[in-house]
Amino acid sequence: MTSGQLTPTDQTEHRYVLTLGCPDRTGIVARISTFLTDVGGWITEAAYHSDDDTGWFFTRQAIRADEVSFTADELRARFAEEVASELGPETEWRLTDTRDTKSVVLLVSKETHCLIDLLGRAHRGELPATIRAVVGNHPQLEELATRFEIPFHHVPFGERKADAFAELARIVDSYQPDAVVLARFMQILPPKLCEAWAGRAINIHHSFLPSFIGARPYHQAFARGVKLVGATCHYVTAELDAGPIIEQDVIRVDHSDSVTDMVRQGRDIETLVLSRGLRWHLEDRVLVHGRKTVIFN
Amino acid sequence: MTSGQLTPTDQTEHRYVLTLGCPDRTGIVARISTFLTDVGGWITEAAYHSDDDTGWFFTRQAIRADEVSFTADELRARFAEEVASELGPETEWRLTDTRDTKSVVLLVSKETHCLIDLLGRAHRGELPATIRAVVGNHPQLEELATRFEIPFHHVPFGERKADAFAELARIVDSYQPDAVVLARFMQILPPKLCEAWAGRAINIHHSFLPSFIGARPYHQAFARGVKLVGATCHYVTAELDAGPIIEQDVIRVDHSDSVTDMVRQGRDIETLVLSRGLRWHLEDRVLVHGRKTVIFN
Amino acid sequence: MTSGQLTPTDQTEHRYVLTLGCPDRTGIVARISTFLTDVGGWITEAAYHSDDDTGWFFTRQAIRADEVSFTADELRARFAEEVASELGPETEWRLTDTRDTKSVVLLVSKETHCLIDLLGRAHRGELPATIRAVVGNHPQLEELATRFEIPFHHVPFGERKADAFAELARIVDSYQPDAVVLARFMQILPPKLCEAWAGRAINIHHSFLPSFIGARPYHQAFARGVKLVGATCHYVTAELDAGPIIEQDVIRVDHSDSVTDMVRQGRDIETLVLSRGLRWHLEDRVLVHGRKTVIFN
Amino acid sequence: MTSGQLTPTDQTEHRYVLTLGCPDRTGIVARISTFLTDVGGWITEAAYHSDDDTGWFFTRQAIRADEVSFTADELRARFAEEVASELGPETEWRLTDTRDTKSVVLLVSKETHCLIDLLGRAHRGELPATIRAVVGNHPQLEELATRFEIPFHHVPFGERKADAFAELARIVDSYQPDAVVLARFMQILPPKLCEAWAGRAINIHHSFLPSFIGARPYHQAFARGVKLVGATCHYVTAELDAGPIIEQDVIRVDHSDSVTDMVRQGRDIETLVLSRGLRWHLEDRVLVHGRKTVIFN
Repeated sequence: MTSGQLTPTDQTEHRYVLTLGCPDRTGIVARISTFLTDVGGWITEAAYHSDDDTGWFFTRQAIRADEVSFTADELRARFAEEVASELGPETEWRLTDTRDTKSVVLLVSKETHCLIDLLGRAHRGELPATIRAVVGNHPQLEELATRFEIPFHHVPFGERKADAFAELARIVDSYQPDAVVLARFMQILPPKLCEAWAGRAINIHHSFLPSFIGARPYHQAFARGVKLVGATCHYVTAELDAGPIIEQDVIRVDHSDSVTDMVRQGRDIETLVLSRGLRWHLEDRVLVHGRKTVIFN
Repeated sequence: MTSGQLTPTDQTEHRYVLTLGCPDRTGIVARISTFLTDVGGWITEAAYHSDDDTGWFFTRQAIRADEVSFTADELRARFAEEVASELGPETEWRLTDTRDTKSVVLLVSKETHCLIDLLGRAHRGELPATIRAVVGNHPQLEELATRFEIPFHHVPFGERKADAFAELARIVDSYQPDAVVLARFMQILPPKLCEAWAGRAINIHHSFLPSFIGARPYHQAFARGVKLVGATCHYVTAELDAGPIIEQDVIRVDHSDSVTDMVRQGRDIETLVLSRGLRWHLEDRVLVHGRKTVIFN
Repeated sequence: MTSGQLTPTDQTEHRYVLTLGCPDRTGIVARISTFLTDVGGWITEAAYHSDDDTGWFFTRQAIRADEVSFTADELRARFAEEVASELGPETEWRLTDTRDTKSVVLLVSKETHCLIDLLGRAHRGELPATIRAVVGNHPQLEELATRFEIPFHHVPFGERKADAFAELARIVDSYQPDAVVLARFMQILPPKLCEAWAGRAINIHHSFLPSFIGARPYHQAFARGVKLVGATCHYVTAELDAGPIIEQDVIRVDHSDSVTDMVRQGRDIETLVLSRGLRWHLEDRVLVHGRKTVIFN
Repeated sequence: MTSGQLTPTDQTEHRYVLTLGCPDRTGIVARISTFLTDVGGWITEAAYHSDDDTGWFFTRQAIRADEVSFTADELRARFAEEVASELGPETEWRLTDTRDTKSVVLLVSKETHCLIDLLGRAHRGELPATIRAVVGNHPQLEELATRFEIPFHHVPFGERKADAFAELARIVDSYQPDAVVLARFMQILPPKLCEAWAGRAINIHHSFLPSFIGARPYHQAFARGVKLVGATCHYVTAELDAGPIIEQDVIRVDHSDSVTDMVRQGRDIETLVLSRGLRWHLEDRVLVHGRKTVIFN
């Protein structure tokens, strides 16, 4: 088995994917779809959202790349000139080529469930990205990463946290990852890293946010006597556990479940929610606007 | 309280809704959205589906009616001439005006749960339609319908079923309903009515189809020892319980649940699934293609 | 149709139901089951919970009443003397006869969904209780209650809330209800009534507690961008929305759902969660201990 | 990392677990609980089910082993003599010691998801058993098993299937496993092995049975247009996909999901359902009666 197997294989179709957010007005859909038609694009997926609350327009469109006689770069240049320029300076857009394999770095501590789950998905080519490295603040998960032939970096977090975070940032940034996944990483990112990795740092929190922010959420859930426990995948921002939510789900518990039982059952929801959220992020299905997300899945 | 309260009130926005299905090819999205822009349409909802399996294209788009300087009829005429004519003879489309209140006729037997649920939704203006009449093959539910000021027709199903169905059809057709809902109506529609009401007759079957087709599905589920029971909302076709599925859902049961318990718990799923499916049908969110549905919700 | 139909009919079996909570120790199960065997009881349901966290023991047992040669009162007297006296002064227990029809009073405001749902369940004999009265702080729901032949009392809540609550309490207490259900009653009960109705006052809160305590939880959920909204059925205590939770559930929402959409979809979860919680309460399946519940369902 | 980590660690408590099924009659609960009290047993979990349909009684009870002054063998001898002998010849019971680590053999083909999931659970000590071996009819998964230090046996299934099954049985039986898990093993066990491993052979079927029995269930689901796909964990019997169901669950799909999408999403449900079912089996929470199961979880 070679690490080559850790690159995506499900994604057999070659696509260009356009995502865009801008102030809403009439004619945007027509403008974009006419552009895509003019360049020979066969649209395979198209989703729109017109947000009444903020007056913002969002879209994601996928077209068959093989039938377009332009490279991704040429398309970007044309789109910038012919369409984006008309939509106003606040417009945010990107055009990605599904052949450009995305890269992911995982931050871990001692818990194995999210790590093994993501390694397994990458191993069977289900994750639309390559896991480039695993970074742990403890050394325990090195052997697991190594078994799947992923480089592991140990960054001890002792008294000088600032130094550790600087070292962590240096390692992570060396991979230029499309996603930095806090896969049950038990350290709070400093504001500077939240900013540097804005829109790329993805955390899994082991509660149904905004319930049970902070430490030991299963203990909090047990103490409150809730009948469901959950997990939340969200972008990391400087405010703890308050970033834009990508995905959430819950699982039923009852009075017979101890904290240990909740922790065990919760792991299954954490892995599901994180893997879904990460997939959507990597497939450019998540558009962030303010504190909220639009998910085109 | 007047029966006037039984008309929709949630639906405050005035919209034109276009739904369309046709053989897929490049440029359809651009063609339609350009048309909508040209008539001054502000698109509030737009959904597309390109079906690889059948090579078919589906869309649903809603635009603000108040900003369009055409009536619905004028729009239909223009769309037919300028767009639909180019998309090929197999194209199916409709354009509806949300101000044209839709009408529903309910067929019932003796079970009250779906009837009360739908009456309640209509009563609080949540259903985007008016319930015009309730027709029962038994007289028991007359009082309930009457309490909500809905006309009730009793059509006894004795030995001459054909006569009863003819009478039933005469009554139902007199209301020209947009939906004929078999709200736990325990009679199987004859093929002729399935055809006459194709795409309008909606049934709730008390199992997760295709499991447990036919009579007494909860008894079948109990005998098999399944761990979830479900319900299925589908269009009625001549083949029993085999029409295009609109919505399904399930609820957990266990070994301690008797058939009676399953029946009771199942009612909650039946009402939810039927009300969701009916709402989507009435909002033109359901497009049928062959044995399957596209749901733009 | 007579109001007699509003009494339970599902509950055909005659049972005695014993519930008990006491400090845990060895031999309690043997003691209780031997007692039930000695009086000729055929146990049809038995559930136990030994709570490690609090060192408390809980049980619920149902026996066939027809095979026991004692009345409920005789059984209570014997149980008190022969068993409960040995289990310590903190022991709490009750023995109910399923033939003693329980009574419910509903407190409402203007929202119809929980009211219609419960009236419908009572109407088909699904609720193991009789709805004795509906009390509203607004007059709007009188007609609905009257349609189902349930007495309605209007208690206006103007400037002198204390007077209104006194009048409300007088009316409610006149029915000696086994459950006082706040079926989307928009007033906060004063501490005195929380205490008077402790363990009997049941609220439905339209969020997944402890998220979004207080007013307008769907607005809070919308602002936070959560991907699921929920509802919580709990006992009312003096601390707002912090009483012991009986049942919770959630439903998926997405970026396209406005607050109005969430309110509409949330209604379905509110009715389900309230009706389940109320059923369990009425069937003596809920044992409260501190801030938490044990649910033997 | 040593393979010693593959033994259970969550299960810190030492328990004796009694499970029993017999014809129902009065006094069984009292008889059993009195026995357990007499031997000094502190009951930590107790569950009962009285099955009206079959007239059968089922129980599972867990007691703290450290406070009992008998070995498991002594307890078994006493229980056989003092209790079981009175309950009739049809009585089936077992008493297990949670210190006796259970063993599991996994049968696999080429799909990795269930294998990695179970290896991961065993690795973190979450599975109450040791995975003793993996047997594949293809060689592909050897490397994965080896990474987790589990012996792998390749048994090719060529033309002489009977020989292959004989070899498979020889290998499996050499481990005397408490569970033989068909973790997406794509061969149908011959009747002789179904019988030999009755109550121990556990399959995961990738549909919500009884829908879509047999081959390619996701293709069947896609063709039917269902709105949920599911998975079923069940005991293997000679009749294909018809054995007693242990656990089932479903996940929502829609018109935009291809068969490939359903396969990918279905994997998550398959792993969840199999791991839950296997856990309950290993914890003696599953009692089989005829075609159905009682699950004390």
